[in-house]
Amino acid sequence: MKIGLVGLGKMGLNLGQNLMDHKHEVVAFDLNTDAVKQMQTYGAQGAFSLEQLAASLESPRIVWVMVPHFAVDSVLEELLPHLDQGDIVIEAGNSHYKESIDRYNRLKEAGVHFMDAGTSGGMEGARHGACYMIGGDEEAWNIVEPIFRDTAVENGYLYAGKAGSGHYLKMVHNGIEYGMMAAIGEGFEVLEKSAFDFDYEKVARVWNNGSVIRSWLMELTERAFSKDAKLDEIKGIMHSSGEGKWTVEEAMDLQTATPVIAMSLLMRYRSMDQDTFTGKVVAALRNEFGGHAVEKN
Amino acid sequence: MKIGLVGLGKMGLNLGQNLMDHKHEVVAFDLNTDAVKQMQTYGAQGAFSLEQLAASLESPRIVWVMVPHFAVDSVLEELLPHLDQGDIVIEAGNSHYKESIDRYNRLKEAGVHFMDAGTSGGMEGARHGACYMIGGDEEAWNIVEPIFRDTAVENGYLYAGKAGSGHYLKMVHNGIEYGMMAAIGEGFEVLEKSAFDFDYEKVARVWNNGSVIRSWLMELTERAFSKDAKLDEIKGIMHSSGEGKWTVEEAMDLQTATPVIAMSLLMRYRSMDQDTFTGKVVAALRNEFGGHAVEKN
Repeated sequence: MKIGLVGLGKMGLNLGQNLMDHKHEVVAFDLNTDAVKQMQTYGAQGAFSLEQLAASLESPRIVWVMVPHFAVDSVLEELLPHLDQGDIVIEAGNSHYKESIDRYNRLKEAGVHFMDAGTSGGMEGARHGACYMIGGDEEAWNIVEPIFRDTAVENGYLYAGKAGSGHYLKMVHNGIEYGMMAAIGEGFEVLEKSAFDFDYEKVARVWNNGSVIRSWLMELTERAFSKDAKLDEIKGIMHSSGEGKWTVEEAMDLQTATPVIAMSLLMRYRSMDQDTFTGKVVAALRNEFGGHAVEKN
Repeated sequence: MKIGLVGLGKMGLNLGQNLMDHKHEVVAFDLNTDAVKQMQTYGAQGAFSLEQLAASLESPRIVWVMVPHFAVDSVLEELLPHLDQGDIVIEAGNSHYKESIDRYNRLKEAGVHFMDAGTSGGMEGARHGACYMIGGDEEAWNIVEPIFRDTAVENGYLYAGKAGSGHYLKMVHNGIEYGMMAAIGEGFEVLEKSAFDFDYEKVARVWNNGSVIRSWLMELTERAFSKDAKLDEIKGIMHSSGEGKWTVEEAMDLQTATPVIAMSLLMRYRSMDQDTFTGKVVAALRNEFGGHAVEKN
């Protein structure tokens, strides 16, 4: 198929090559013209505006948008006037599912199909086989399914149903990921504080071979310890990019108890502070009522 | 090698066959003589007392004890008089590492090596390739290593060092397992409460193919949903058998923050109560200060 690819960051550049590996034609656009030229060297047709990109595609056009979430709406606004009824936009970034439903409805007014695709597996996945969760109209799905089948790992794509369901699944996937990662981190924290002297790379390796907790995340743990035996080179500051928070917000809206995922999110926030005001208040109160020592700044 | 196997429950029966698959000779004992006879039909030599078992082994004897944790000390007490200096006892159940250190010290007085082996991978692992974490004397390790190598999956065993380190790793492994399982459970809880209609078996399958959270636990999740699409047949009561609690207790002793693992343990306890006194107290207080409605028994 001929696919318009908007957004040639780390994910887009890898996905573009993956698409072409599977005999799809790619028309590539990015605001960064160097990235467009790079994609051209891989064999893609370059486009230097969204108008040119749209003009290079036949109807029904298929446009795969893979840009940072804050840029999605401006891309859609600029792209839409150049699209026709029956065209399909796939938004494969990390958007909130409610935004995806809004976008679906907005594009539907113009007769354009909008599909929300959650993508997992990182850059390696984008290049050699990703994992996709996709929501949107079944009519559009039937047209674009081969693209997902070709660029996913085997069994690595799911048409999840109505608009928003793809990004919803990706959101919850990431919530689970937060909890799993926190559990792994805390386990190694106990080992590190213990009276034993463990080799963490070897521990992660044995846990990856035959144990109940074998997993890709534990493989990444093994890889990380193989590069830096005690992770001395990095700080334990855990940034986050939204989906974990969205999962917890969604759980709150649903009045659903998800304390483990919520705690993993809160501990990420805690990790960003060197000191806490909570700590100061509690230390001050212990001092007030019991004369317990406080540590001075 | 010739190995005495004490304890022919689900794990022991599978391990015994695994040992014999790898050309080891097994002398098998259990209080349940039917299990001994079953093991004999698989090709093991039967023993009908620990004395007979010890007499059937050559020095240095290797005795693999795989009995419920409450039975370990009575087995050791009865076995020890029949062992000689240099003999090796492998305790491969789920014992607390501090008990394993005590047992190591007790057996050391008699010149007998005690090795603590944490075993993961369930019955399938015991039968076809387990995951082992082993602590104890290096001198004894050098003798028994082939047994672990033969019955583990590839790279599925680790000699972790001094006495207790094997069961310590198994304890923390299970703590991580609690957190990972809780995160998975909570994720599906959000899906179940959501406005979407997901097929959980398909969701687990796509998450197992190319996603960041692919794992053996997610494979088991997929398998469970394949048998019972909404798990209607079971209750959400989460029992526990100790290691998660031990991990949290150890973390408390080490003054180490493991809130995610701790929360996963506490939510298991919560799942065992239909109603809570906490809930009654909080509902009563809301009623007292704000006149908020309470639900009557």
